[in-house]
Amino acid sequence: MDRDPLERLTHELARLPGIGMRSAARLALYIVRTGAEGSSLPQDLASALAEASQTIRRCTVCENLSGASVCNICADTRRDPCVVCVVEQVQDLRAIEATGVFRGRYHVLHGALAPLEGVGPDELHLDRLEARLKSERPKELMIATNATVEGDATALYIAQVARPYGIAVTRLAAGIPMGGEIEYVDAATLGRAIRERREL
Amino acid sequence: MDRDPLERLTHELARLPGIGMRSAARLALYIVRTGAEGSSLPQDLASALAEASQTIRRCTVCENLSGASVCNICADTRRDPCVVCVVEQVQDLRAIEATGVFRGRYHVLHGALAPLEGVGPDELHLDRLEARLKSERPKELMIATNATVEGDATALYIAQVARPYGIAVTRLAAGIPMGGEIEYVDAATLGRAIRERREL
Repeated sequence: MDRDPLERLTHELARLPGIGMRSAARLALYIVRTGAEGSSLPQDLASALAEASQTIRRCTVCENLSGASVCNICADTRRDPCVVCVVEQVQDLRAIEATGVFRGRYHVLHGALAPLEGVGPDELHLDRLEARLKSERPKELMIATNATVEGDATALYIAQVARPYGIAVTRLAAGIPMGGEIEYVDAATLGRAIRERREL
Repeated sequence: MDRDPLERLTHELARLPGIGMRSAARLALYIVRTGAEGSSLPQDLASALAEASQTIRRCTVCENLSGASVCNICADTRRDPCVVCVVEQVQDLRAIEATGVFRGRYHVLHGALAPLEGVGPDELHLDRLEARLKSERPKELMIATNATVEGDATALYIAQVARPYGIAVTRLAAGIPMGGEIEYVDAATLGRAIRERREL
């Protein structure tokens, strides 16, 4: 049964995160069925995978994933080079882009400092970020790492790296989410919102 | 952004059932990331898709999906040709195979009768099943369509088709599932279990 193409496709799909053998079998059958009914889905997906695996690499400027050596955002001359937003993951960059609020550039760390897991400044290639600060001299470094212990530690570390260059370092505001009701906000968030309260 | 390979892969993955844009983006990033780290996942998945879409078709005997013109089960001479199990979908065949209880052969309808949705005997190619009954003359037709209105209707229809050939037609037992507690079994199941009660 190992050589059966349907089994093989199921097996490969099950390697994806969050997809178990049962879901993989369902997806494989769906793909084969629609393919047999004339849909171009199997071929389209196969070629998108092949293209992605062959062409996508890290942007040489900001480490974002891109099909080109310089990503769309870094190549866009309308983006403000004075503000660089530091994120942990490409997903975070996308979430910020989706707000439409930020018009600067990015730097993707592909992780956060986690010494116990062996992730230090070298693993995050913070030397590359520093080299960028040195050469580009942005006015502001907006740190958008997660509001977690690792994200906060990473933000503090990067703030120290940026200090010698006289660059303003900011951090996304932490607090009660939009629509949040005080009664139901978790204690950690509420505590932080109190400590970081602003004047009206 | 449409031409970006990562966007394209995300878009193709989002065509799969149960996978929204957010999951698709997560999967695409995972695929690209592991690919960049040396995993063969993207290529393996692409080639499995290509192979599946090129080679998988319906078994000429039982309509099961297979990489060969006759599926593994129909080609297996150790399987009992005297019992043919009729299922709605390939998933159902797999579920029955997983029990290890059934050693006969199958016939896959790829659907159930649903006149209001335009699915009649022609759409299910019941003439092919009838031709099979005529030529193979199995002793028993075990109908394993779903315990739903459509599944029951399909079972009754097929029983009529089989009658002229003097073939015993059976239906999977319906009732309380293993481990089911009477208190919590739904009324429809409990009602059916009472109507179809057996002597001990």
